[in-house]
Amino acid sequence: MKENLSPIVLDIAYDIAGDVKKFQEMFSDREVYNLQADDAPSDLSCIRYALVWKPRPDLYSRMPDLEVIFSVGAGVDHILNQGNVPDLPIVRFVDPTLTNRMSEWVCLQCLMHLRMQKHYERSQNQILWAQEHHPQACELRVGIMGLGELGQDAAKKLDAIGFQVAGWSRSKKEISGIDTYDADGLEAFLSRTEILVGLLPSTPDTAGIFNRSLFEKLVQNTPIGGPVFVNAGRGKSQVETDIISCLEDGVLGGISLDVFDVEPLPEDSPLWAMPNAYLTPHTAAESDSTAMARYVSGQINRYETGQVLENVVDRSLGY
Amino acid sequence: MKENLSPIVLDIAYDIAGDVKKFQEMFSDREVYNLQADDAPSDLSCIRYALVWKPRPDLYSRMPDLEVIFSVGAGVDHILNQGNVPDLPIVRFVDPTLTNRMSEWVCLQCLMHLRMQKHYERSQNQILWAQEHHPQACELRVGIMGLGELGQDAAKKLDAIGFQVAGWSRSKKEISGIDTYDADGLEAFLSRTEILVGLLPSTPDTAGIFNRSLFEKLVQNTPIGGPVFVNAGRGKSQVETDIISCLEDGVLGGISLDVFDVEPLPEDSPLWAMPNAYLTPHTAAESDSTAMARYVSGQINRYETGQVLENVVDRSLGY
Repeated sequence: MKENLSPIVLDIAYDIAGDVKKFQEMFSDREVYNLQADDAPSDLSCIRYALVWKPRPDLYSRMPDLEVIFSVGAGVDHILNQGNVPDLPIVRFVDPTLTNRMSEWVCLQCLMHLRMQKHYERSQNQILWAQEHHPQACELRVGIMGLGELGQDAAKKLDAIGFQVAGWSRSKKEISGIDTYDADGLEAFLSRTEILVGLLPSTPDTAGIFNRSLFEKLVQNTPIGGPVFVNAGRGKSQVETDIISCLEDGVLGGISLDVFDVEPLPEDSPLWAMPNAYLTPHTAAESDSTAMARYVSGQINRYETGQVLENVVDRSLGY
Repeated sequence: MKENLSPIVLDIAYDIAGDVKKFQEMFSDREVYNLQADDAPSDLSCIRYALVWKPRPDLYSRMPDLEVIFSVGAGVDHILNQGNVPDLPIVRFVDPTLTNRMSEWVCLQCLMHLRMQKHYERSQNQILWAQEHHPQACELRVGIMGLGELGQDAAKKLDAIGFQVAGWSRSKKEISGIDTYDADGLEAFLSRTEILVGLLPSTPDTAGIFNRSLFEKLVQNTPIGGPVFVNAGRGKSQVETDIISCLEDGVLGGISLDVFDVEPLPEDSPLWAMPNAYLTPHTAAESDSTAMARYVSGQINRYETGQVLENVVDRSLGY
């Protein structure tokens, strides 16, 4: 049976030791080769599928029969930035497990800023009974930049909690109950936004988009002090020196960052110790290996039965 | 004009200096007397309404013509526990501003436990890039005890975020999309609950209800370690020595408390420094003075135009 179906090559540049077993279980009818393993085959010809994270430079030359590239994660900058990508479909990872986790992280960050969690964390450490006044979520305007699967789901959940939610995307999206803006409406979008949530892919267009000039266009006098910047898209979209200086001079009142220009965030980054800053180590939306195996299996099944692949990247857009 | 309408007496045992002005503005057509003020009248006869928090013992004897008692806050234990309460309607404070704030606090606490905020707080302080695995909200079962306005709204919002939500109340409540249990179903409710949220009033029946025996009935092996106890009802419903010992021996894996047996929480309470404990100083759901004035004004208007008062306390139940 196994020899009838093309194997899958895993070229994933982080430790996935435990996950390979899950992949092998999910693909009981075909081989799964982990290029990180000692027993990985050297001959990859005749293999049609690869699942990758920052693939090695010679992968494509070693896989002359490759037909589909699957991305670990919703973003594909880790593939496109490596260069020399053959003209094959690249399939992004889109799955409720990823979307849910991302929305839960976004909701958590917005609520922590709404309810001044840093203040209560400090008070508790100092054994202080220090009451504060808090606005309601419905008094705060959250704006999401990026309205793909992740942005749309986060918008719906923030709306259900009670926040006033708007969304921005390059091309106009219609989302029930949410005000949306397109490229031309960026200034209007920013001028009504008190908590800015970044869920943008990393592309040439988004590089450094979250900078001082943009932060200065946010509502400056908010019910929670200054405006807040929340980013779980990609670190390349933010200018970290601007974030730091904006926190220092009050153009920003707080941040929540899950992504960074360099990861892991270097120990000497001032971000670690900025006031009202919540940092997480790129764990907002983990790519669950069971879900990923199920997704890739489903897509291969579609492909081999003549249906179109889903979530194929438009290379002209970069996502 | 003002002499035609009964004044309102405020007997509120905390500093409301700034709020009195808001009340006076809202009640432009009638006098508002603050018993904490130096210029409070000594003669309170002929006055029909009082808005109280822990009223002074002689209030009722000084107000022989009192007709309605309004409570600052959703709970009325602060009135009933003072004793000698005349047989008059007691109106609880029910308002979206209070309900929203409470739900937002509950959602925040559940999300912080889901996403191990204590771990990330500690990692950030120690400048550590320390990734953790997180379940999705849909993998966690939250159970709410108390399904009044507050419990029902929290249930809906937790459900919208994605948690598996069930609710318990003494008498069965039907809530769309939420599993509900009544008094007889307590054991079944607890045995499916991983995060327990307390939103119960303080009554003789609820005194000390959150104790070791109850915590031991929660699901012990949860996707986030041990079960979590979240309380924003009343401190009298929890046995704090049990909470502490259950955190120590692992019967509880974490807590979020906004209410305490004694408030402010004494400096020598071990709760301040327990692991995986989030404490807030009774700020989960603040009674917004503008909203309260609007509410009391609306209720008095109903009363004086022959409509029934809303949210009148059933003294046999204590809420």
